[in-house]
Amino acid sequence: MKKIHIVGLGLLGGSFALALRKSIPEIHFTGFDSNQRNLEDAKNLGIIDEEKLTADPDTDIIILSTPANTLAPLLQEYLNNVGDNTLVIDFGSAKSKLCKSVEEHPKRSQYLAGHPIAGTEYSGPKAAKPDLLENKVFIICEMEKTDIHLKAKAYEILEALNMKIRFMDPEEHDTQLAFVSHLSHISSFMLGKTVLDKMEDDRNIFDMAGSGFASTVRLAKSSPAMWAPIMQENKKNILEALSMYIINLSKFRDKIIEDDYEGVFHEMEKINKIRDILDLQ
Amino acid sequence: MKKIHIVGLGLLGGSFALALRKSIPEIHFTGFDSNQRNLEDAKNLGIIDEEKLTADPDTDIIILSTPANTLAPLLQEYLNNVGDNTLVIDFGSAKSKLCKSVEEHPKRSQYLAGHPIAGTEYSGPKAAKPDLLENKVFIICEMEKTDIHLKAKAYEILEALNMKIRFMDPEEHDTQLAFVSHLSHISSFMLGKTVLDKMEDDRNIFDMAGSGFASTVRLAKSSPAMWAPIMQENKKNILEALSMYIINLSKFRDKIIEDDYEGVFHEMEKINKIRDILDLQ
Repeated sequence: MKKIHIVGLGLLGGSFALALRKSIPEIHFTGFDSNQRNLEDAKNLGIIDEEKLTADPDTDIIILSTPANTLAPLLQEYLNNVGDNTLVIDFGSAKSKLCKSVEEHPKRSQYLAGHPIAGTEYSGPKAAKPDLLENKVFIICEMEKTDIHLKAKAYEILEALNMKIRFMDPEEHDTQLAFVSHLSHISSFMLGKTVLDKMEDDRNIFDMAGSGFASTVRLAKSSPAMWAPIMQENKKNILEALSMYIINLSKFRDKIIEDDYEGVFHEMEKINKIRDILDLQ
Repeated sequence: MKKIHIVGLGLLGGSFALALRKSIPEIHFTGFDSNQRNLEDAKNLGIIDEEKLTADPDTDIIILSTPANTLAPLLQEYLNNVGDNTLVIDFGSAKSKLCKSVEEHPKRSQYLAGHPIAGTEYSGPKAAKPDLLENKVFIICEMEKTDIHLKAKAYEILEALNMKIRFMDPEEHDTQLAFVSHLSHISSFMLGKTVLDKMEDDRNIFDMAGSGFASTVRLAKSSPAMWAPIMQENKKNILEALSMYIINLSKFRDKIIEDDYEGVFHEMEKINKIRDILDLQ
């Protein structure tokens, strides 16, 4: 492993490089970001050694870590020009459309569909942290479609990063992520909106907000440039999750309207089982 | 300050006693909890010195820290029997109905309507922590209705606890809390329900859940015995907040249905201003 090229030097791409540098210091990192400021920051922070618009032909791995809706054309372009021993990995949060977009590509076997389950509400290279990926799950989709020798390169870096590999098919991935990740972001953004709309410029209200509000609304700080495209790329599953959520909220509201507090109690009690599940993690 | 009696020895009542013991060690704490196990735990954990069903006549302060729907009858009963130099304070999350219920009480001036803005998703005396209230906001409603000499006792303990006092009228309190606290709990419970319903026994799904899900769903671990009564006591405001939330979610869903990702982006971008507000806290 000598050369890695990263396209998109934000939170994930940056954290990936910072962590890998620690365990495999001899890797030379090249990279690019269409945002000039991110590019400068990434150089200054030691995320990449060298700015390069395209990857050298002897690059071991190309990482695509840009917003979800830019990945299909980027992947197409990088596969078209890829060196024979180069593996292309994307870090996107939606996998079905992306995998379909390259299923007939002659170099499909040089692509690995990946998704590191890690993030914070902050974005950009300055938010990158060497421990962000540590012990986190890395999902691989359609693993059988990737060349076995190139796949070994992916395993080498995932092991160096201390990540837990999970295999899923793209549709399963997209459904599950819609429920456990994408929906959380929408619920949090809309919670933020509801409070902001009500309170307008009354900042005192936030004084009243205990840590409960801060944690449920935290994701509303997330980057729209990352999240709006995810809504687009995982539209079908997100609409399913969001509709179920709205129905559940409406039924809960009906219970309150009908003064059915026993029903409210039992509903909450059933949901409490999430304690056992989450505390196992 | 020599004697404090606490009714309801859970997270808040327990944390209050543990913290106050540290700064004013000479106070003798008596107390009661209708749950025998909580009562035993509170004694074993040193939350109270002595179990007592009713407060001694020379008690300085009686704290009522029980579920929201039990407070009105309890407050009535304690005020009926209160000693001349005793102040009764409640810690309830809803204030309008409670304040109204005693507005004609001949001993109204011996009551202080309080609400410490602090909590965790855990409950019971074992969850109590001496630093839970530290630096948190303590809301006082209708402060002008409390006797000035008795109020001094409240200030003495709030200062000892290092809490920040805010004054609000009960209606304002209930509206604001519906938005920044009660709604967060509902959004979190229903998020938990939506994921549990979809995934049923597929625990693997929770592997996929990054820290984003864990933080937005954290409040779904909260105690139904505490929260169902809050829905009841602050019904009107909670319904308003919840309805606004459902409308916002539905409009956001419409944008996704219509492929209006620019609209999605701008919506998220506007909500991002919550960063500045929260980061000021």
